[in-house]
Amino acid sequence: MIVTIVGLGLIGGSMAYDLKAGGFCTRIIGVDSNRSNAEKALDLNIVDELSSLDSAVEKSQLIIISVPVDAAQKILPAILDLIGDQVVIDVGSTKFSIIEAVSTKPNRGRFVASHPIWGTENSGPQAALKSRLSGHITVICNPEESDKDALALAESMYDCLGMESIFMGAREHDLHAAYISHISHVTSFALALSVLAKEKETETIFQLAGAGFESTVRLAKSNPDMWTPIIKQNRLNILDVLSEQIDQLNLFKNLIQSEDYEKIYCLIQEANKIRKIFNK
Amino acid sequence: MIVTIVGLGLIGGSMAYDLKAGGFCTRIIGVDSNRSNAEKALDLNIVDELSSLDSAVEKSQLIIISVPVDAAQKILPAILDLIGDQVVIDVGSTKFSIIEAVSTKPNRGRFVASHPIWGTENSGPQAALKSRLSGHITVICNPEESDKDALALAESMYDCLGMESIFMGAREHDLHAAYISHISHVTSFALALSVLAKEKETETIFQLAGAGFESTVRLAKSNPDMWTPIIKQNRLNILDVLSEQIDQLNLFKNLIQSEDYEKIYCLIQEANKIRKIFNK
Repeated sequence: MIVTIVGLGLIGGSMAYDLKAGGFCTRIIGVDSNRSNAEKALDLNIVDELSSLDSAVEKSQLIIISVPVDAAQKILPAILDLIGDQVVIDVGSTKFSIIEAVSTKPNRGRFVASHPIWGTENSGPQAALKSRLSGHITVICNPEESDKDALALAESMYDCLGMESIFMGAREHDLHAAYISHISHVTSFALALSVLAKEKETETIFQLAGAGFESTVRLAKSNPDMWTPIIKQNRLNILDVLSEQIDQLNLFKNLIQSEDYEKIYCLIQEANKIRKIFNK
Repeated sequence: MIVTIVGLGLIGGSMAYDLKAGGFCTRIIGVDSNRSNAEKALDLNIVDELSSLDSAVEKSQLIIISVPVDAAQKILPAILDLIGDQVVIDVGSTKFSIIEAVSTKPNRGRFVASHPIWGTENSGPQAALKSRLSGHITVICNPEESDKDALALAESMYDCLGMESIFMGAREHDLHAAYISHISHVTSFALALSVLAKEKETETIFQLAGAGFESTVRLAKSNPDMWTPIIKQNRLNILDVLSEQIDQLNLFKNLIQSEDYEKIYCLIQEANKIRKIFNK
């Protein structure tokens, strides 16, 4: 099979490595509007050739869209207009807006909306990693809106990547994604800004920062080209969770101000219940 | 040399493993008011024997205090009353209060206040790890208040652990610690509480939570026995940084509400500067 990957960054690149290594496809065509990224991906053997979108789509049986979610929302309807019976899969972090953008398209069924739950704080083709997707979950949204064969192809692709497919409505996905991914990023951006604003002695931060700080602030390195559109597309859910997060911090602040250490102890004990979820 | 370790948890236990392996001492006596922890430490060969505090202090040349900071503040003055020319080192995450607690003691000079910058979210002797302190920094506070030989012994102990000693005033240490450690914990507790409060379907969290969420919420597993006293002792600094963090989150909230994505993009770009500090 020939696969086209539109967007040769962290996710597209990592998928390309593993799909080729797993024998899912014989050839990968790369499409990227950023010339320098495209050439880097070719140099790194992420893709076998570079092409324009039209020509790549014509030659492929499967088209993977792995661009920021605002670009995906624009490009997907255009791709659906180009294809015949090919299958199109997107891998963005928000699902409702992109599905809505193609809901009235005659060949909506050729599209499978998915979100592989993996990533790092890095971006671009040089950030792509081999054999790292395996063992993670992918969410396929509104599967009833995709043709059976398109869905089957998407599932077999994720099988090849070692990822388990789970199914969910797009609204439900976006709500959960706000809780377990998007809020972590906003919190991490805010933490980085707090520290950068107050700590002028960056050398001191570097020396003193332990693993705890590093892990909470790691996501603050994430690319604004990717995250601004995610915030835009999942605005209401993120606002809801963000308000909850601010309330929780204000609760801590008030308890620290009033020196109610008994209640602080109880809150930490309550927070410890997250251990049930990540039992490591 | 015979070393006594008071408090056989994550830090005391990890130090015990490496001090013995590194040949810094021939024998380690363990003291822990929690009988079950004490016995676990003996079973794990973290210590060679268990003893009461009085008897352990009498037999040792060096006493390491690795209990929660409120307990350290209480026990340290009592230990200074027990010792002759032995050296006492504490390893707590706050430094001003503990130093203040012994400032008028005649043998203040035998005490070295330190904070090895390493830890995990786990606690108790079973959480102790071998060969993990090496490569990290330790902060020694108000070194001018310690006797030269006591300071030299503390430095050679940290040398043996592979840790670099840096020196700082206690007030300065506590301010930096609020920024690069304590706020990360409070933020992580709040994040865990937000998610636990809203996400009733914990199975869904478990399935969907990626590495990003896990890294920002990991610290929320931290022990309230350790963290409540840290918050108490570093109250004013933590309040200051927490207010800053709430302001930053409110800024994000307002910009998301008003859909000012250009400004959000700029804020994320600004947050990305943390990459200069953790260039990984």
